[in-house]
Parts: sequence; C-alpha cells; structure tokens
Amino acid sequence: MAASAIPTSVNPDIQKERDAASFSSEEFAAWWSGGEDQLKFNRSVRDYLQKDMDVEEVRQMHNKSHEEIYEFSSRSAIVAAKKLQRLQKERNPGGNEYWPTLYDNQVMWGLVPGGNPFGVMYVMLVKALQAQCTPEQYEEFGKRIENFEACGTYAQTELGHGTYLRGLETRADFDQKTDEFVLNTPKISSYKWWPGGLGHSSNHCMVMAQLYIDNKPKGPHMFYIQVRDEETHEPLPGIHIGDIGKKMGFIGVNNGFLGLKNVRIPRTRMLMRHAQVNSDGSYVSSPSNVLTYFAMVRTRCVIAWNNAVMLAIAATIATRYSAVRRQSPINPKEPEPQIMDHVTQQMKLFPEIATSVAYRLASAHLWNLYDITLGDISNGKYERLPELHSLSCALKVNCSSDSAIGVERLRLACGGHGYLSSSNMGHIYVNATAACTYEGENTVLLLQIGRFLMKSWRAALSGAPLAPTVKYLAEVQKKPEFGSWTGTWENMVQAMQFAAAKKTALAFKSLSSRLSRGETEETAANHTGIELTQAAELHGRAFVFSSFVDEVTGPKAKTRSAALNHVLENLLELYLVKESLNHMANLLRFIDLTDTDLTRLQDRLETVLTKLRPDAVAIVDGFDYSDVQLNSTLGSFDGNAYERIFDAAMKNPMNQKSVPNSFHGHLKPFMKSNI
Amino acid sequence: MAASAIPTSVNPDIQKERDAASFSSEEFAAWWSGGEDQLKFNRSVRDYLQKDMDVEEVRQMHNKSHEEIYEFSSRSAIVAAKKLQRLQKERNPGGNEYWPTLYDNQVMWGLVPGGNPFGVMYVMLVKALQAQCTPEQYEEFGKRIENFEACGTYAQTELGHGTYLRGLETRADFDQKTDEFVLNTPKISSYKWWPGGLGHSSNHCMVMAQLYIDNKPKGPHMFYIQVRDEETHEPLPGIHIGDIGKKMGFIGVNNGFLGLKNVRIPRTRMLMRHAQVNSDGSYVSSPSNVLTYFAMVRTRCVIAWNNAVMLAIAATIATRYSAVRRQSPINPKEPEPQIMDHVTQQMKLFPEIATSVAYRLASAHLWNLYDITLGDISNGKYERLPELHSLSCALKVNCSSDSAIGVERLRLACGGHGYLSSSNMGHIYVNATAACTYEGENTVLLLQIGRFLMKSWRAALSGAPLAPTVKYLAEVQKKPEFGSWTGTWENMVQAMQFAAAKKTALAFKSLSSRLSRGETEETAANHTGIELTQAAELHGRAFVFSSFVDEVTGPKAKTRSAALNHVLENLLELYLVKESLNHMANLLRFIDLTDTDLTRLQDRLETVLTKLRPDAVAIVDGFDYSDVQLNSTLGSFDGNAYERIFDAAMKNPMNQKSVPNSFHGHLKPFMKSNI
Repeated sequence: MAASAIPTSVNPDIQKERDAASFSSEEFAAWWSGGEDQLKFNRSVRDYLQKDMDVEEVRQMHNKSHEEIYEFSSRSAIVAAKKLQRLQKERNPGGNEYWPTLYDNQVMWGLVPGGNPFGVMYVMLVKALQAQCTPEQYEEFGKRIENFEACGTYAQTELGHGTYLRGLETRADFDQKTDEFVLNTPKISSYKWWPGGLGHSSNHCMVMAQLYIDNKPKGPHMFYIQVRDEETHEPLPGIHIGDIGKKMGFIGVNNGFLGLKNVRIPRTRMLMRHAQVNSDGSYVSSPSNVLTYFAMVRTRCVIAWNNAVMLAIAATIATRYSAVRRQSPINPKEPEPQIMDHVTQQMKLFPEIATSVAYRLASAHLWNLYDITLGDISNGKYERLPELHSLSCALKVNCSSDSAIGVERLRLACGGHGYLSSSNMGHIYVNATAACTYEGENTVLLLQIGRFLMKSWRAALSGAPLAPTVKYLAEVQKKPEFGSWTGTWENMVQAMQFAAAKKTALAFKSLSSRLSRGETEETAANHTGIELTQAAELHGRAFVFSSFVDEVTGPKAKTRSAALNHVLENLLELYLVKESLNHMANLLRFIDLTDTDLTRLQDRLETVLTKLRPDAVAIVDGFDYSDVQLNSTLGSFDGNAYERIFDAAMKNPMNQKSVPNSFHGHLKPFMKSNI
Repeated sequence: MAASAIPTSVNPDIQKERDAASFSSEEFAAWWSGGEDQLKFNRSVRDYLQKDMDVEEVRQMHNKSHEEIYEFSSRSAIVAAKKLQRLQKERNPGGNEYWPTLYDNQVMWGLVPGGNPFGVMYVMLVKALQAQCTPEQYEEFGKRIENFEACGTYAQTELGHGTYLRGLETRADFDQKTDEFVLNTPKISSYKWWPGGLGHSSNHCMVMAQLYIDNKPKGPHMFYIQVRDEETHEPLPGIHIGDIGKKMGFIGVNNGFLGLKNVRIPRTRMLMRHAQVNSDGSYVSSPSNVLTYFAMVRTRCVIAWNNAVMLAIAATIATRYSAVRRQSPINPKEPEPQIMDHVTQQMKLFPEIATSVAYRLASAHLWNLYDITLGDISNGKYERLPELHSLSCALKVNCSSDSAIGVERLRLACGGHGYLSSSNMGHIYVNATAACTYEGENTVLLLQIGRFLMKSWRAALSGAPLAPTVKYLAEVQKKPEFGSWTGTWENMVQAMQFAAAKKTALAFKSLSSRLSRGETEETAANHTGIELTQAAELHGRAFVFSSFVDEVTGPKAKTRSAALNHVLENLLELYLVKESLNHMANLLRFIDLTDTDLTRLQDRLETVLTKLRPDAVAIVDGFDYSDVQLNSTLGSFDGNAYERIFDAAMKNPMNQKSVPNSFHGHLKPFMKSNI
C-alpha cells in the first residue's frame, strides 16, 4: 500500500517546464503586480500572514457544517486582523497601509477561504460612513467601526428587492414628538436579506430605508441602527436577525436577514452629510448624487480586477495540473503525454490565461480614467461621468461573465479531480459567478449601457460631440463601410468597434421603429432589450481589445525585456484571435471576411497555441499566487497533485473511523432482512 | 414583524398564469411522460414514496457536515428501498417493476437529494454482473447484490487514470500454485478513486484490473472482491478503503478510494463469461467486445435523458419564480411587473424550456435506433453500431454541456436568490455539469466522433455507402453549394447539416494536409483537434434539429390536440431560431444569408418569445415535477417563494441560538482590545 507523505521535491514534469521557459517568471511577476517594489511588498505581507496558519483546517473546510464553517471563518478573520495590526505596529506604527487597508485585499483570500464575515464592514460600511456621516456623526459612531470597536454591515437588499433601489420597502417614519425615527419592515418581502456579516457578525448596522415625514415619502436614506447588545450580543428589542443559510459560495460570510418592528433611533442617527431632517420635521434634500454615483465606478473596477485574479488563480491550478497529469497517448506506441500536449487541452487553458491578462489591463486602464475624472470632478467638470459609468458597467459585466465561464472551463479541463472540493476549482467558480449578480445584476447593467449607447448614437446623429470611448460610433455613422479586413491587431480592434457600432445601429433602428409605432420610450426599450444587451456587450469588448493592444504595443513595451514582450505579444495575439472567432457571427454580418481570412485565423490560433505551450507554466508562475492563495491540491507549486489529493482525502473526518454509524443502525439490518 | 407561516393558498400571480394558458397542462404532461398510463403510474409511485417524508430535513441538508450528509443519504436511500419493496409486495408480489427497477429512476431523486450511495450498485454493478458473470458466478454472488443481501460498487477509475482505460495500473497476477489472483495497487496513482458508494457503502466490489499471467499482460479484466466484513463492516486485510471527501455535487454518494495490497481471491472470482483463465494458467480471450460497446450507447441515452430532465426541473423553478417575483417597472408610472414580462428575462427562460424538450425528443429518437439495432445485433448485423455509438456520444456531449450551461443561465435568471442552497438551483447545476466528465469526458468523446466523421467522409469520397444519419455528408460532397436560405424548419435542419458537413470537410482538409506533410494519423488528429471537435458538435446538433422537427411535424401530431401542437410548434420555432442564431458564424461562413434574412430571424425570435409568454407557466406545469422533486424554495407549485425562502432560513440550525460560540471566544475580546 502506498504511503501518503507529500514529497518535498518538485515534480520533474513541472520542473522541466520551468527550465525550458523562454522568459523570466520573476519579470512577469513584477509586471503583473505593478512593479518590483509592489511585488516585494505583496510577498512580504503574504509571508507574514501565512506563516503559522493551520493549513490542514483550511483544506478540510468543505467537510464542515454550515455552522462550523461560520465559526472557523469568524475566528480566522479575527486572527488575520490581529496579524495585520501587529504588522502595522512592527513596521510603521500609526500608519494604515497594513491595517486596515489590506483587510479587504486579495492577500486575505487564502486566510479566510470561506469569505470574511467582516469583509462588507470594511469594503462598504466604513466607506459609506466616511462618505455619508457628518463629521460629528463620524466621530460619534463611524470611527468606532473603523477601529473595530464595534462591528457592522451595510443593509440595503431586501427579500423582495435588489437592484431596483426605489422599490425598497423598509420605512423610517419621523416622529417629531420624540425626535426619533421609527423603523419597520412591514412585510416578509421587506426584510433585509443578503448583507454579508449581518447574521451574527454585526452589533450595528447601516440600513437603507424609505424616509417618511408626516407619511410623505422622501426616498431612500441611510440610518445607523444598533442591532445587538455590545456585551451579550443578544438582539435588541424589535430586532429579528439571523443567518440566511447555506449558499453556493461565500460560505463563511454569514449573510443575514433583519426584520425591524417599531425600532426607534434618535433623529441624529440618519446619516446627514448630504440630506437632513431637522427637529421641526423640515427636510433638506441632497444637493447632488454625483459622488455616490462615482463611488460605484470604483467598486466596479475592483470587481473586474478581482474576477481577473480569480481567473488567473484558476488558470494557475489547471495549467500546473495539466503539466503533471499524463493521459492518453497521442501515438499508441509512445508513453502517455502531459495532457497539456493535447491541442484541445491547450485550447482550454491558454485562452483563459490570456483573458485574465486582458481584464487585468482593462481594469487598470479604467482605473486611470477614474483618477483623471476624479481630478475633473474636483474642478467641477462632470462631463465624462456618464461615459465612465457606462464603461465601468460594461467591464464589470463582461469580466464577471467571462471569468465565471472561464473558471468553469478550466475546472472541466481538470477532469474528474476538478470536481473535488480539495481542488478549489468549484469554489473559485461559485465566487466568480456571484459577481454576475451582486453590485448591479448583469442584464440590468447591460440595459443601462444600451440606453447610454442609444443616447450617444442619437447625439452623434445630431452632430453633438461624443465622449472619447464612444467616438467610434460617430466615425461609423460617417463611414458606414468597414473597408478591408487585414487581420492586424489594430484592424481587429477596429473590427470589434465596427461590430459594436453596427449592433448599436440595429438596436437604434428597432427602438426608433417601435417609438414611431407609438410605444413609450420604456416599453420600446424593453422590447428592444435583446439587441440593446448585445450592443452593450460588444461595446465592452471593444474597450478590452484596445486596452490590451495599447499596453503591449504602446510606450510601456520599452520598459520590459524583449523576452517578456514576446510572451505578452503571444497572449495578445491569442486573445484577439479567439475573441474574434467567438464573435465571428457579428463580424461576418458587417465585415467581408473571405474563406481565406477565416482559414488564416484558424491557423493563427493553432500557431499561437503552439508558441505558448513551452511558456505556459512559467506564465502562471508569473501570476505569483502562493499555495495558500491557490488552496488547491491540483495546483501547488511543487506539482505533487496526486499526493496532495490523496493526503486531503485521508484527513477527511469521515475516514477517522472505519465504520459509519448508519451501518449498524440501517444498512446491516436492511441487508439481513433481504436474505 | 412578519409571521413565517407558508400560506395554504396559491399565489394569485401564478394562478392567473394558469388560468390564461392556451392549452391543457395535463395533455402536455401525458405527452411528456410517454402517455396517460405512464403519467398515472409515475404519479402513483411518486405519491406513495413521498407520502411521509421528512421534508424539513431534506431542506436543511446543505447546512449539514459532509459526514452528516452521508449518514442522512444512506439512511434515506434504505428507507426508499424499503418503500419500493413494500409497494412491489402490495401491488404485484413477485414482480420487479417497482423494486428494484425504479431504484435508479428519477422518481428517487427527491427522496435522496444528495445522491444515492447505492445508486452505482444498481445502475452499473448489477448490470455488469449480469453481463459479465457466468451463470454459476451470478448464482453464487451476483444475485446477492441484486437482492441487496450484500452491497457493492463498480471500481474502474483510478487516481491517475480515467477515460483512458488501457492506462489503468491496478494489477491482478495469477498465482497458479494457489489457483488465486493477487491484486495490487502499486502506486498512489493506481488507487481506485471516485466510484460511488465505495467509501463506506460497499462490502464487495467489482474491480477493473490489468490481468497478468506469468507477468505477461492480458489487458483489463473484471474481478469480484470482498472489501469489508459482512458482520462488522471492518475493512479486510490488505484493503485500504474510505471516502474521497466533499465534492461540488453528489454530496451524499460516498465516492470512495480503494488501495489493494496482496489481496488474494479465488481464480473463479474473475468474471469469466467472455474471457477465461484456466487453472493451468491458459487464457481464453473474449470473442467480441460488441456488447460491452453497445451497453455504452444505452448509458449515454440515459445521461442525455437525465440531463434534459435536470434542465426541465431548473426551467420549472426559474419560470415559476419569474411569475411571482415583481421588480423594476417597465414604465415608471406603472407598478412593478412580473419579471417574466421583461423581454431579456423571457430570453433567459424560454430557450431553456425549448432545449429541454429538444433533448428529450432526441434521446427518445436515439433510444428507438438503439432498439432497432438491438434487433439487428441478434440477427448478427453489426453495421450500424459505429454510427450509433458516435451519435450517442454526440448526444451525451451536447446535452450534458447545453443542459449545464442552461441550468446555470436559469439560476442566474433567479438573481441573488438563485444563489441560495434552498433554491436548489446550484445543486442542479453541479449535478448537470458532472455529466460533462463522467462516462467519457466530453472532449475525448468529441474527438472520437471527429474520427468517425473523418472515416465517413473518406468513405463517401470513395463512393462507399454511408450510415443513414451521416448520409448528408455524401450529399454535400455531391452538391457543395447550399442553395437558398428560405428559413423554413426543414431548410434550417438542412442548413445545420450543411454546416456540419462543411466543418467536416475543413477538418478533413487540415488532417489530410498534415498527413501529406508526413505526420502520423494520430499526431495529425491531435493537431486537428479543434476543428474535429467543432465538426463533431455540429453533427450532434443537426441530429437534435431533425428529431425535433420530426416529432412536431410528423404523423404523431395527429394524436395531439391542436392547442398542444401549437405550443410545441412555438417551442420548435424558438429552438431552431435561437440555435441558428447561436451558430450563425458557422452558417454565415458556408451559406448566403442576407441582412434581411438575419433581421427576419431576430424578428422571429422576438415574436415567438411573445407567443410563449402566456403559456410559459403552463408548459413547466406540464413537465409535472412535484415539489419534492423540485426541492426548491423558489419553484413550488403554489408560488409562495418568499415565504418558503423565509421559512427555510428560520429553520437553519445557526438560527436556533441567538449568539454564536465565537462571539465570547473571539469577537468580543478582539473588539474590547481595540477600544
């Protein structure tokens, strides 16, 4: 019988790959991380946090019950917070670059693999308090959250309402007599539902509710409410609070529900930085919602970036596994090859590597636009906001959707073992796909982008100037034929823009014809929904195309070695070719591609897969994720996949006794009864 | 605060849908089930089995630990077996139409929602024993399994080898001195890994191992081995056995591992119906592998059928939920509509309804071919076997892949609540996607189909006759232009066949050019892998197209009411139009479609969605799945989705105490330390 020890040596099949790579993984890692200093910083934090972790408990997490997973996640999240606090004190006391800044950073993912029940507290609640509190309010209760003296979450979504904010049912009635608000969730569908950490990990809570004064609605506002006693953690009177139960993913996040019955809070617990209710019941509305609006742009950059990382992590696991798994001889007389030598396997792996790079670059590009626009706003210039909002939606939608599909393709590329919880592939998938729904459901966002494209198209028709990233619409109006397909990278970017513009034109035509038949703008938009979402998707793709080409062929190329540039060029080539083939129906509809052009694209696809083959392992090494971050028996750096699958299975709690309880209670009596 | 009781009345939004349907759900249900008698039979069994179930425990399953889920599944599977035995005794003692026939039937799914740890025992082991045992062997040990006097599984896959059977490493050496086989798993990678029920639910096991006589390999053979003591259930000497840990799905199935160290069994425990080892060590090989081969055709029909059902179940849940969820007004002054009124939502739901019907019909069609061929085989005619094998692979691949993607699309169509375990949507997905890997990994199968298409194309070039379902290849060779796109259903079938043939031609050209450059057949096939898999996929789609058209427009239409036919025509129209649009890149490459043709297709798509809208709920009612089978808070017949989500959350074990253990142990001390 084989022993279960994990070898300390590196699997020779994966070492061979590293030795034969055409470029330096270290240079790739520095580029991917945003520079050598950043890489060094990331690694030092990671090493510090991961040093004395109980990796075995992490590996067995999926075998635990829902409640045990919560207890484990809560404990791990606090241990990690303490470590970051200690690191801050050791390296730069009084600063905040470690704690709390890194608490919602990717470096945390491996430490709290089921998700952090205090994640929403830092990702959303602290930021919302900073943006919405008056200085006095922040001093009184905001800072306590920032310091983790109290714990809380941001409660907006209800059982009956999500993306459509105006439909929220929770209400806050102003009671002038007592100078209080009275909060209620009048129906089951009004219960707050989904906020991360709401279940058992919050003693305070920011609640979005419809403000009523003298029974007159003033729209949704934010209220700060204590939900549990700080000493006993028992729910306060009128508060019905708990966990919503197991979900596909975010299994440790303690998503919760909250019912409110006549819960009274002082008037000063409405967040009053922008809108105010005075003690006489007079109401001052917010002067502008631009900054709220703008914060969402940043959140969507973060989502795109996070999902690109999930895809890169999944690609790392699947690529390493494909280097050490040998299966099915190509020629019957030869030994079984590394499965990465099967061209169909390359076709599953390498396009996803390229896609993760594409979205990482596109989100960096968008982040730049964000910074520029932030400067504009401080100078009172709001012109680019609608463009930026729409672009950030497009990136969020395309990246969440493509990364989820890509992670799943990579999981399937790992065969049966990709189905094991210990591979982590399924878990990465469920986290990736969640982003298709949260922070604006993808279809709802695509329809918003579609409306922006309709406005832009209409503006262009009337000769009005267009925002930079939609200028191509006006160009296509002026020159409605594409010209020649040459297949250069620039030509491929233009082709994707052309297809996006033509799809926009088709949607505009359908919409106009519905309007002329007397439909309202909204009904016509609903009926044109399919074409609007298609145009919106292509608009986003064109942006990703151009960001990728800019990064690889632009001036930054000079800062990189020729060897690294060569690899990036191969990834760009693969990305553009496979995406063009994926969207060929749209290209062929509007652009003349000959049969030779199409054959040539297929040749380019096969050629670049072959070129990337020797560098694949080195590229994913260059993503620089640690074994703790990957948390996968299939993807460890040493390539000892079988030994790790084996080891994880042996430590499964079910194997700690040889005969299960149900044998004597049920199985044996049943079998005896059949004799 | 709202009460948590589930109303006994039907949600008026869903009742309104039922009242307004254009046809009878009952007639649909009879058609879908295969006739009125079959429907009645199914319902009577279902009612009997579901009568006194503990539905609450089923609903909380996902909150349990891996071990608890196993105990629950094992117990539930035995309870269900007893019920079927009782039913058999009550209705037809001595027969077998209830027990054990229905034990691997879909009617069981709701009873053992985590999967049946004794499923493989009946789906595979009993059938393999029947097919591979000599009559004496079956009498000695086969029958005991059939009667559930002992329990067992079928162990083939190893940690290091799956689809590539010849690579298996477990070996059985014949020891002539003792007239025994000695079995060993020499390496970690040789361990049996994955068999359902192997962990703790088998005391016997059929093991596929490489037979060696005098150290000379004779290829894989089957051996029947006792692995646990029948009284104590303790593993026997030399047996290392246990559970492989949590997986994405099949969470109660107890997939296991098995290591063998010098395990000795009598020579007569090799299954010797076809191949034999005599006591003198002489070996008689199997005269034919046709029947083994043929059994796989049937298994793949079953998979296609099961996955079509999973898609239908998911469509039922998402469609009912879309009738009761109201969100986002289309016109700002109107109330929020049922989300099914959003055209983009219709586009997520209705195509999947049509797809599940398409695969149900295609698998029925294939099953007919199977029966015909079974007759042929008994007359010694094996000609159609390669065709049928290839077609069954194509159906298995396309249906598993499309159904998995479709289920996930439907889950996303349920928004955030589709992410709740209590919705069951994620769980249906993980079961559906598993079929992409088991019983022949999809890409491996597509490559096999591709090879069959290459052979057929070559045969057609030489004028040899082709099997009926690939005759279209020869027709396209004779007439290499498509002619006119008219957009009739027959024309659309021909177009898909034409595209499949042209893709086959392209792959053949690439393959031939590689061969002429001196590559071996196998290397050339590897390099042509992408094009081969694409051709194979389209070949399968063309078959599904024609099966669907045949059923709806063929003679059977006369047996149905005009109202039902009208609904089926709408589903067919939607299926053909959306699939043609999905594969438009392939159609446009080979067939001239004008811009008007494409606009017309988009119009047809939008038109048929509108036509299906009033019948959607009635159609999924016609699928006739019970609430227990759906096992979803979102999809119950009464449409009380919010109340059921709420009720399931309240009963979550985490909510049975108000303060979690980790509060006093970790959270409170940490917060105090921050003050």
